[in-house]
Amino acid sequence: METRVASATKEVIIGGGRPTVLIGERINPTGKKRLAEALRAGDLSVVREEAVAQVAAGADVLDVNVGATGVDEIEMLPRAVEAVAEVVDVPLCIDSRKVKALAAALAVCPGRPIVNSVTGEESSLNEVLPLVKQYNLPVVGLTLDEKGIPAEAAARVEIARRIVERAEALGIPREDVIIDCLTLSLGANVQAGLATLEATRRVRDEFGVNQTQGCSNISHGLPNRPILTGTYLALAIEAGLTCPTVDVAQVRSAVRSADLVLGRDNYAMRFIAAFREAQKAAEG
Amino acid sequence: METRVASATKEVIIGGGRPTVLIGERINPTGKKRLAEALRAGDLSVVREEAVAQVAAGADVLDVNVGATGVDEIEMLPRAVEAVAEVVDVPLCIDSRKVKALAAALAVCPGRPIVNSVTGEESSLNEVLPLVKQYNLPVVGLTLDEKGIPAEAAARVEIARRIVERAEALGIPREDVIIDCLTLSLGANVQAGLATLEATRRVRDEFGVNQTQGCSNISHGLPNRPILTGTYLALAIEAGLTCPTVDVAQVRSAVRSADLVLGRDNYAMRFIAAFREAQKAAEG
Repeated sequence: METRVASATKEVIIGGGRPTVLIGERINPTGKKRLAEALRAGDLSVVREEAVAQVAAGADVLDVNVGATGVDEIEMLPRAVEAVAEVVDVPLCIDSRKVKALAAALAVCPGRPIVNSVTGEESSLNEVLPLVKQYNLPVVGLTLDEKGIPAEAAARVEIARRIVERAEALGIPREDVIIDCLTLSLGANVQAGLATLEATRRVRDEFGVNQTQGCSNISHGLPNRPILTGTYLALAIEAGLTCPTVDVAQVRSAVRSADLVLGRDNYAMRFIAAFREAQKAAEG
Repeated sequence: METRVASATKEVIIGGGRPTVLIGERINPTGKKRLAEALRAGDLSVVREEAVAQVAAGADVLDVNVGATGVDEIEMLPRAVEAVAEVVDVPLCIDSRKVKALAAALAVCPGRPIVNSVTGEESSLNEVLPLVKQYNLPVVGLTLDEKGIPAEAAARVEIARRIVERAEALGIPREDVIIDCLTLSLGANVQAGLATLEATRRVRDEFGVNQTQGCSNISHGLPNRPILTGTYLALAIEAGLTCPTVDVAQVRSAVRSADLVLGRDNYAMRFIAAFREAQKAAEG
C-alpha cells in the first residue's frame, strides 16, 4: 500500500516495498529548552535551523510540532509551517494535539502534508477525521484510547482497526491512514519492545497500512542510545514500520542498513550514499 | 532447545530464550596475514593474543581455525587448542575441513567443545558424524552439499533436515546439532540477506535447533561494516540465530541491543555492562 505526500514541488511515496521514509522528529520542543524558549519568544530561527540540518542529514519528511507551555499553538503552528516551507522543500507532518492548531496550519501548508494525529478516543475521531477528509490528506492514527496505551499488542491492533474503519466510513481511503503502534521505553519495561513489534506485525498483516513510530522512545533513559534505537528500527522495519519519526542524523545509517539487508536497496546505492554523507559531515 | 558446551571449568548454555552466545571468529588465518605467517612458523603467540583479546571483548566461546597454505593442520590444530586453553577458560569451537585435524584436536581439548563442521555432503556426513558421536559433542552443520550453497532458502532447509536426520540416526541428539544457514555478502547480491533470514526462520520453526552463522560475511566488500553486520545480526537473532560467529569487539553492542529489544535481558543488565566495558576499552 502506498501513501503519497508532497511539498510544494516534491512527492514522497511511503510503502510498497520501497526504502524506508525518514520523518525528522527534531522540530518539537519537548525536552528541547532552546527551541521551547525561542518559540515562546515568537522566534522561528531555531525551527529554520533544525529544518535545514535534518534535511541535510537525510530526512525525507519533517514533523512540525510547537507544543510547549506558554506557546499559542493556533498562532505558532502555521507560522512554523511557513518558516519550514521557506527553507526546505520536503513534505511536512503537522503535529499537534489541538484540532484548531492543525486546522490553522493546514490552511497555510503547501503540498500534501500528513496530519499528526488522531487517536482511538471518540472525541479525537469525531474532531480530527472530518478535518482530514476536508483537506483529503493522510493522517497518523495513534493506538491509544480513553484508557491510555494498552500494554498488550492485541488491544493496540483493535484500536488501529477502529481508526481504519472510522476513516473509511468518512471516505478517507485506507492508504491515507498511517498507524503508530507507539514505541515505549525499554528502560521502564524490557518487554515493551516485543509488544510494539508484535502489534506492528499484526497491523501490517491485517490492514496492510503504512506505519510510523517515534522510535527514539525505545532508548529513553538508557545509555548508547543510537545503537539501541538503530537495532529497534531494524526489527520494526522488518515487522512493517515504513516511515519512522526519528532523529535522522543519529539513525540514518542503521535504517539504510536495514533497507539493504531486507532487499530494498538495489546495488546498495542508498546505503553507500548515507555512509559517504556521514563521512563528509564528520570531516566537517 | 538447549545446547551445552564447556571449557575445563565453565559451562555455556546456548538457546532456550537465553541471551545470544557470542562465538569469537578471529582465530582464523583467512585474510589475516600476520596470523597466517605466525602459524606457518609454528608460533602460537598471535593465537594466544587473539584469544585473550576476544574474551576481554565479551566472547563466550572461541572458534579455533588454523587452515592456511603451508600449515599442517593435523599438527597445528591441537597445538592451537592447547595454547588457547592455557590462556582463557571458555568453551572452544574446533574448526577445520580436515577430519583428521578435528580428531587430533578433540583428543586434547578440555571440556565440551563444538565440532565445526559437517556439511550435507555424503563424504562429510560419513566421516564427521561418527567422530562427533564418539566424543558425544555438539556439531555445526553447514547447509551446503555437493552442488555448493543453494541460493534458495527451501533447499538450505532440506540440507539442514538431512543433517539433523543423519545425526539422530547415529544417536546424536537434535540439541547437539547447530545449523549454519550461511551468510553471504550483500555486496555480491542484495537478496542474499533475505534468503538466509528466511532459511534461519524456517530452520527454527521446523527443527527448533540452535543456529550459528559467520555474520561478518554479510558486509564483505561494503563500507561501514560494523553497523551493517550489527543490523543483520539483529534481524537474524529475531529469526532464530542463537550463537553467531563474529568479531565480538565490533558487534557486541548491537547483539546486546537485539537481546534487550527481544526481551532477553532483564533490567538491561547485559546491555549496560557491554556499554560500560566498551567505554572503558575506548578510554584505554
